[in-house]
Amino acid sequence: MKLTPYTEPKEAGKEMHSLAARLFPITRSLTGAGVRETLDILGEHIPLKRFEVPTGTQAFDWKVPKEWNIKDAFITDESGKKIVDMKTNNLHVVGYSIPVDEEISLEELQKHLYSLSEQPDAIPYVTSYYVERWGFCMTQRQRDGLKPGKYRVRIDSALTEGNLTYAEYVIPGKSKKEIFISTYFCHPSMANNELSGPVVATYLAKWLASMPRKYTYRFVFIPETIGSLVYLSKHITVFKENVIAGFNLTCMGDERTFSYLPSRYGNTLADKVALRVLKERYPKFVTYSFLDRGSDERQYCSPGADLPVVTIMRSKYGVYPEYHTSLDDLSLVTPKGLEGSYEMLKAAILMLEERVVYQSTYVGEPQLGKRGLYPTVSQKGNIDNSVKYMLDFLAYADGTNDMATISETLGVPVAELEPIAEKLIGAGLLKTSSD
Amino acid sequence: MKLTPYTEPKEAGKEMHSLAARLFPITRSLTGAGVRETLDILGEHIPLKRFEVPTGTQAFDWKVPKEWNIKDAFITDESGKKIVDMKTNNLHVVGYSIPVDEEISLEELQKHLYSLSEQPDAIPYVTSYYVERWGFCMTQRQRDGLKPGKYRVRIDSALTEGNLTYAEYVIPGKSKKEIFISTYFCHPSMANNELSGPVVATYLAKWLASMPRKYTYRFVFIPETIGSLVYLSKHITVFKENVIAGFNLTCMGDERTFSYLPSRYGNTLADKVALRVLKERYPKFVTYSFLDRGSDERQYCSPGADLPVVTIMRSKYGVYPEYHTSLDDLSLVTPKGLEGSYEMLKAAILMLEERVVYQSTYVGEPQLGKRGLYPTVSQKGNIDNSVKYMLDFLAYADGTNDMATISETLGVPVAELEPIAEKLIGAGLLKTSSD
Amino acid sequence: MKLTPYTEPKEAGKEMHSLAARLFPITRSLTGAGVRETLDILGEHIPLKRFEVPTGTQAFDWKVPKEWNIKDAFITDESGKKIVDMKTNNLHVVGYSIPVDEEISLEELQKHLYSLSEQPDAIPYVTSYYVERWGFCMTQRQRDGLKPGKYRVRIDSALTEGNLTYAEYVIPGKSKKEIFISTYFCHPSMANNELSGPVVATYLAKWLASMPRKYTYRFVFIPETIGSLVYLSKHITVFKENVIAGFNLTCMGDERTFSYLPSRYGNTLADKVALRVLKERYPKFVTYSFLDRGSDERQYCSPGADLPVVTIMRSKYGVYPEYHTSLDDLSLVTPKGLEGSYEMLKAAILMLEERVVYQSTYVGEPQLGKRGLYPTVSQKGNIDNSVKYMLDFLAYADGTNDMATISETLGVPVAELEPIAEKLIGAGLLKTSSD
Repeated sequence: MKLTPYTEPKEAGKEMHSLAARLFPITRSLTGAGVRETLDILGEHIPLKRFEVPTGTQAFDWKVPKEWNIKDAFITDESGKKIVDMKTNNLHVVGYSIPVDEEISLEELQKHLYSLSEQPDAIPYVTSYYVERWGFCMTQRQRDGLKPGKYRVRIDSALTEGNLTYAEYVIPGKSKKEIFISTYFCHPSMANNELSGPVVATYLAKWLASMPRKYTYRFVFIPETIGSLVYLSKHITVFKENVIAGFNLTCMGDERTFSYLPSRYGNTLADKVALRVLKERYPKFVTYSFLDRGSDERQYCSPGADLPVVTIMRSKYGVYPEYHTSLDDLSLVTPKGLEGSYEMLKAAILMLEERVVYQSTYVGEPQLGKRGLYPTVSQKGNIDNSVKYMLDFLAYADGTNDMATISETLGVPVAELEPIAEKLIGAGLLKTSSD
Repeated sequence: MKLTPYTEPKEAGKEMHSLAARLFPITRSLTGAGVRETLDILGEHIPLKRFEVPTGTQAFDWKVPKEWNIKDAFITDESGKKIVDMKTNNLHVVGYSIPVDEEISLEELQKHLYSLSEQPDAIPYVTSYYVERWGFCMTQRQRDGLKPGKYRVRIDSALTEGNLTYAEYVIPGKSKKEIFISTYFCHPSMANNELSGPVVATYLAKWLASMPRKYTYRFVFIPETIGSLVYLSKHITVFKENVIAGFNLTCMGDERTFSYLPSRYGNTLADKVALRVLKERYPKFVTYSFLDRGSDERQYCSPGADLPVVTIMRSKYGVYPEYHTSLDDLSLVTPKGLEGSYEMLKAAILMLEERVVYQSTYVGEPQLGKRGLYPTVSQKGNIDNSVKYMLDFLAYADGTNDMATISETLGVPVAELEPIAEKLIGAGLLKTSSD
Repeated sequence: MKLTPYTEPKEAGKEMHSLAARLFPITRSLTGAGVRETLDILGEHIPLKRFEVPTGTQAFDWKVPKEWNIKDAFITDESGKKIVDMKTNNLHVVGYSIPVDEEISLEELQKHLYSLSEQPDAIPYVTSYYVERWGFCMTQRQRDGLKPGKYRVRIDSALTEGNLTYAEYVIPGKSKKEIFISTYFCHPSMANNELSGPVVATYLAKWLASMPRKYTYRFVFIPETIGSLVYLSKHITVFKENVIAGFNLTCMGDERTFSYLPSRYGNTLADKVALRVLKERYPKFVTYSFLDRGSDERQYCSPGADLPVVTIMRSKYGVYPEYHTSLDDLSLVTPKGLEGSYEMLKAAILMLEERVVYQSTYVGEPQLGKRGLYPTVSQKGNIDNSVKYMLDFLAYADGTNDMATISETLGVPVAELEPIAEKLIGAGLLKTSSD
């Protein structure tokens, strides 16, 4: 596949939002046509390698389920009027519903309805992947208005031996050490969870492909849980050997807070970098516990997988009120929200790419003065911070500390230290190496 | 010796209190007939192996003192009336008093009297093991009422070459690794310090003997200090090799707080288990420093001994007002107080017995749904805590963590996690091993 | 050289102050006659070995500058009156000024003047070691009173190929392990920074030479920065092998607070000892960060040097208002201030000299009673602190802890523990070893 040569987008946020808007109406689920259609569109941006994994394939304790496809789903009342129609909103049908075509009483219908009494205007998102049933979702308000009588329920779906579809895009770097980025796309018409992850991942991949890289980047677009388990089961050995840091991308499109969900013990390189980037760019970010996990980090950080994966999000899944309802739409997700997350992740990736440990080239402090880096007259109070930071940086450049650690030690943001490090390297006073 | 087959007592607290009441009047000291009589009675419950260690036997820096036996001790006034009589309360005579039979003035008598001005109604407990002297103890109130005149003091005691008596009961387990439980019985008529320790130890031993055991249990009943030194000096090598955790039992019978006195550095398995059990069952427990030690942990945790021994008590020795006085009686010690301590120690022992490290059997989360352990419909908010705890337990079941650590990490009591672990093991999702 | 036999001075503070007063008027700089004259005088007290390092000698990134000597420096006004004269105060001339002899306008003169608007009565201390220029310093008040007109500026100085002068005094001990003490003397007429360092160092050296020593002591008297770099460049290998602790002596003469400036990671033996001594003797001391460093610890603790060097000071350089001005004089520095610092450092040195790890000689507690160290009657509440501290000391005398650690653990000052340790050693209950 031939891609347009990459130009850094001027308005990445708007572009990502447009892409999300194009993907929004597609009826996605764990498997099926909606997933393939989504990957077709993402594939216009990045050269995705697509995989089809047959129903029944084992992945650790799990099996790939049947493939689900759906053409239509509606309820009509006695007058034949469609009171619920998945063409209006694909959240109206319970994910993985088996086919049905019956006339039933309201009483019988109620057993198959889902609504949220506390959010009476929201259609909830409900699935039943591993037990065969059918059902409809609607707002509480609509449900409360249903009158006794006969209703026709029709779901034109098919559960068949088929495939689970996922895609990866591996962008090779100089090193076979990998940064792993995972996102999922198994949700129908919801925007933050989860179109924000795939669109940000797509744009991150475009950006990375365009720039010189030290590390290899592995992007995976999978259905949640079963997808990450399938992927892990195929790649566990190479993963444990090569992945130095990973990010699970989800809930990245709103404009609210940033959130950090650590790895199992919170002590990996991914944790260190995530914390530093968040502290610098959004010091009010919320730190969760690994006990609050709920997305694919559940698999990546599980015993036996033990990957150094963290999640940087905006509002955390399960926490924001629109989560898993029809309110999670393209007004909650904004260009600004997406762009902020994109920039946050770029910063984390750059910190990883540029990560070196520093070593002062001289024993003792170097003579800054002869290089024009120090005031030549020594008088009380005439040393400014930039000189102090140069000397402080050198003092901790003892071959064990990287930028994140020196920044933490000095209490000075990376952004302020980076030009200082460059200046010192330029002057031959500092060198770098991998640790 | 033939013991009655064991039945878990229905009212262990009451039984222990009765046993304490039976032992209460006996005049115990470091050595002598009272000690043997006490062991005779305890020996009706558990098959104690008794040892007699001759006077003069060296134990590190110490020597076994002479054996002390006493028949009578009283003071009469000029009218011949017994104003103090050890038959009324054996605390009236200073422990290890040499014999005396004299008529002396009040002035002379005063030099041999002990009382507590701040607790005017308490007879203090006083001993003089290693310097030969005689003396009487009485309440301050009584002492203040003494009139000038002649007094006859008579102590019919004998300090002779004899023996120090102690007993042990080793209950073998599958492993030669040992849990060590030490208590002392050298105090005359005082209940909390120290009949509570021996009676709780006796009932713990009965309970342990009746149940399948992993570890070997070593119960020792000794006089304080010299007894633990003698015992250490005979067993130090095997101790250092085999003891994985130990408890010194003392002050276990009142109904006040629980207290924890750590080992020298507070970092042994006994400390970990004691802390967890106390946190769970009595979160208001008081933590002392090793600097507050005052019982046989002084010997067991000394340099060179270095045993992993802690003390779980109720009110700490030296702290509660009745300590080492006649007020430490069978009204301070209650069935409920004894039973609470007994249950606390059973819980600690069970935690040790059941201690394993956990390992999840699958990479990734297992599929709880297909085992009926997970809701089959996925809808916002319908995951309850028991499901969450299952997954959290598995997430930390990485072959390094035991129940106490997982409980601490999850912030969930062991009692709540145990059935979860069992369920997971039953479902083949979790296995255990020794670390 | 023959020194008078040493007698511990009765009034060390007064003697040090007199020595400082004698040194005060000398015009010192990085190099030159003033430095040699200073060393001549110090050499009357201790047998200094003097070194001359030629201009241009490389020391890591630095080169020894030209030697600077000055005979005269003044400004006269149109009437020929000397309005500024280095004979009055040698701070009036910028250090390392090149020769000048010109008549210039006030406007031109202003470009060569230095004053402090915020301290209008202070002459600032200004140098220009590595760029050739000339200049005068005066009070702001005097500068503000200068009238337009012609001024004659005359500086009779010489910058020539010469030497950097420094001196060392190595006092051998039983061990070749070294305590390193560095101080600098490149400042003209200022008392706290920096005559206090050299005079305290001199008296410390006198004291050390007179007493039996375990360690070798290396005192160095150098010009700041270039001097420590030169010294490091010659001794780096032996340093890294032998120095177990070091102190940089500066700002030791005022009566204000004590200050502690740690080594790079704050984790060396020097840090431990400094902290303990300060906590004990002046608990209100101020702890700085290594980021606040500003003296020769910049070199000694730099990557590649990595020496275990800390600074114990009174008011920290750069912090006290008189710093680097004519106000830093012999009224700021007092006999009492000097003596306090001298005693603090002696305490630190003694702590190092006497540093051993302790080992209890018996398993279990020893029997203090038979040695008269314990009350022979045991009664509630009659154990005083000295007995408790004996037992606590023994409890932590497990062959891993030194006095500083035991003091920290027990929360009892070293001064109170030392006699206890001695008593225990005397009684054969405690032994010591090097760790």
